Amino acid sequence: MFVTFLSDFGLQDDFVGTCHGVIKRIAPEIQIIDVTHGIDPRHVLQGALVLANTTPYMPEGVHLAVVDPGVGGSRRPLALRSGDGRLFVGPDNGLLVPAAEQQGGIQAAHELANADYALHSVSRTFHGRDLFSPAAAHLARGVAIEELGPPLAVDALARLDIPVPDVGENRIRATILYIDRFGNVQLNLTREHLERAEVVPGTTVEIELGLERYYAVTARTFADARRGDVILYEDSYRNIALALSGGNVAELFAAAPGQEVRIRTRGV
Amino acid sequence: MFVTFLSDFGLQDDFVGTCHGVIKRIAPEIQIIDVTHGIDPRHVLQGALVLANTTPYMPEGVHLAVVDPGVGGSRRPLALRSGDGRLFVGPDNGLLVPAAEQQGGIQAAHELANADYALHSVSRTFHGRDLFSPAAAHLARGVAIEELGPPLAVDALARLDIPVPDVGENRIRATILYIDRFGNVQLNLTREHLERAEVVPGTTVEIELGLERYYAVTARTFADARRGDVILYEDSYRNIALALSGGNVAELFAAAPGQEVRIRTRGV
Amino acid sequence: MFVTFLSDFGLQDDFVGTCHGVIKRIAPEIQIIDVTHGIDPRHVLQGALVLANTTPYMPEGVHLAVVDPGVGGSRRPLALRSGDGRLFVGPDNGLLVPAAEQQGGIQAAHELANADYALHSVSRTFHGRDLFSPAAAHLARGVAIEELGPPLAVDALARLDIPVPDVGENRIRATILYIDRFGNVQLNLTREHLERAEVVPGTTVEIELGLERYYAVTARTFADARRGDVILYEDSYRNIALALSGGNVAELFAAAPGQEVRIRTRGV
Repeated sequence: MFVTFLSDFGLQDDFVGTCHGVIKRIAPEIQIIDVTHGIDPRHVLQGALVLANTTPYMPEGVHLAVVDPGVGGSRRPLALRSGDGRLFVGPDNGLLVPAAEQQGGIQAAHELANADYALHSVSRTFHGRDLFSPAAAHLARGVAIEELGPPLAVDALARLDIPVPDVGENRIRATILYIDRFGNVQLNLTREHLERAEVVPGTTVEIELGLERYYAVTARTFADARRGDVILYEDSYRNIALALSGGNVAELFAAAPGQEVRIRTRGV
Repeated sequence: MFVTFLSDFGLQDDFVGTCHGVIKRIAPEIQIIDVTHGIDPRHVLQGALVLANTTPYMPEGVHLAVVDPGVGGSRRPLALRSGDGRLFVGPDNGLLVPAAEQQGGIQAAHELANADYALHSVSRTFHGRDLFSPAAAHLARGVAIEELGPPLAVDALARLDIPVPDVGENRIRATILYIDRFGNVQLNLTREHLERAEVVPGTTVEIELGLERYYAVTARTFADARRGDVILYEDSYRNIALALSGGNVAELFAAAPGQEVRIRTRGV
Repeated sequence: MFVTFLSDFGLQDDFVGTCHGVIKRIAPEIQIIDVTHGIDPRHVLQGALVLANTTPYMPEGVHLAVVDPGVGGSRRPLALRSGDGRLFVGPDNGLLVPAAEQQGGIQAAHELANADYALHSVSRTFHGRDLFSPAAAHLARGVAIEELGPPLAVDALARLDIPVPDVGENRIRATILYIDRFGNVQLNLTREHLERAEVVPGTTVEIELGLERYYAVTARTFADARRGDVILYEDSYRNIALALSGGNVAELFAAAPGQEVRIRTRGV
């Protein structure tokens, strides 16, 4: 049985290791897979998108996710069961919803209210350790989700606003969702958006980001472009992204998540 | 059986992975929990405090810790057994002592002197790999601590000076122990120190750090404060800490471990 | 059975976690050891050297390595078997060759061409997830290397140019291979090179790096030097390296991988 674990805890501190310890004290035989702990601090939307992208690649089990700026306040702690039988544990701030909806929809939601499945003393600032990790470990050992606390109405769960692109003829206004270690810039676009805007593979488009304008080639992979070319491509999670062949496009553009990117075909 | 592992090795290089390899060659069935490898390079006090804070959350087993600026010199390599049966492995520079004392006191101390439980060739600069990881793996497999080398007198072990706060009426002079990824600033204070200084929950205090002065609210959690408020709160390890609701207080204050912080109640 | 895993993926993103998920879906019982994911982005030579240095410390099994700037292009995906029975999986860009040659030589090489041992859909940009991780997992479960695809001629494999030092009497011209978290600067030198240049242990040598000149002491370990001394020593992988006792020599020198370092004995 598996617990997968995603958070904004980083790996500099002991947060992740301490949660591992808590899980292993409860469920020594459970395997933990760290999806990532590099979500930008408190960036719930980024966490939700990465969780939704990666969950299909994970073994079935319990998916623990903690990006929790409202810890200690009124947001509820949560466990969800999705249509395909996966379980999700985390805060009720929208973090878990896109992944669970993609995995067959949310079939059940329960508030983590049963103190038997939390640590003896629950702090006000580290629910990852005191509430979420113990709940995930108990679920992984076979405790039923109904045991964790009262059911919640699915349509009363907190949800995130995921930015929607504005797609016109030969132009798109998109938003940067994520920038990875290689400086690749993920946009809130899919191939369908490019097709609707009549962006043709193998052609050059104009990219406007802040005060800068660049040309980019629509390509299938880094290796299709010359070194130093900016390319617009479908990334491995089927999002449209910008990359610089052999370099870091995010540095070149001084790009940051949340920024607007305009794409125009050259004919315009 | 578990080996937990804390160090200042970071995760950029292969140091941690190589130690995992060494442990798994000796004890393939042992589970390793990485507590953290983000201790500031060579910062023995920080390592000792994080080890003491986190060990209660770890399964019982062997607790390997390596922050070892004196590697290759005269400091001795060490294994300890604490009163509650935990085992600790690391350098004799004070790193292991606070955790072991908190876990029922140091019952036995042995120098790692038996070459049967080290790698064949021991380098002068990487005892984590060549001495400490093999010793931890052998202990986890059931080798008795007495087998590793001669006993050491407990009161001859190296110990650290842990900074003590100066607490007066309505004022405290404290030291920054640690700053985490969220910029939260941990002080060498507990709730008892605040009570002795008559700092009342829910009130505003003055914080002086370097040349800067700020006001902070004494609060229970981030969610009690307005966004942008500096709060003074008891963190999840029961240390008093400074945080900025929704932000990074360490950046705001340009704070660093070892710096002095003065706290005054506003009445003064 | 073990899969060890080295890459330039870093730990900020989900790349490593997603590969773990893919491996565990195929081979839930396999243990994964993360050697390091901190190889500089696209730095194949650095990856190859770290893989060769660390593999002897790893349990036998499948050694997965991904530093792959040519992903999606014409470079072939590869599995190797070395003379001592280890298996290596990664791109045919020279990354695997030094490690496999050191482990008894390359006995067999196969292209990863059998779609049965890849994910159903193979992206153009993330072969770590879609090709290499599944191949490693299947090999670890006992699939024969011959099953993965057609054999390749060993002498047709891509190989790296490893920089060779220029050693004269009382002077060496070396290249920086790697800089670790402590700022220690690894050179493309062994003790034999120092001996050939008649650099005597315990003496002072002159180091020239860029426009800067420093004196360094040839020492066995950090503890042999005074705090603040630059030392030239044999590191734990038997490479000659520069360190600053108690500090960071790479920062002091503004050193970077690939730079030239000149060493002269003082008599000259």
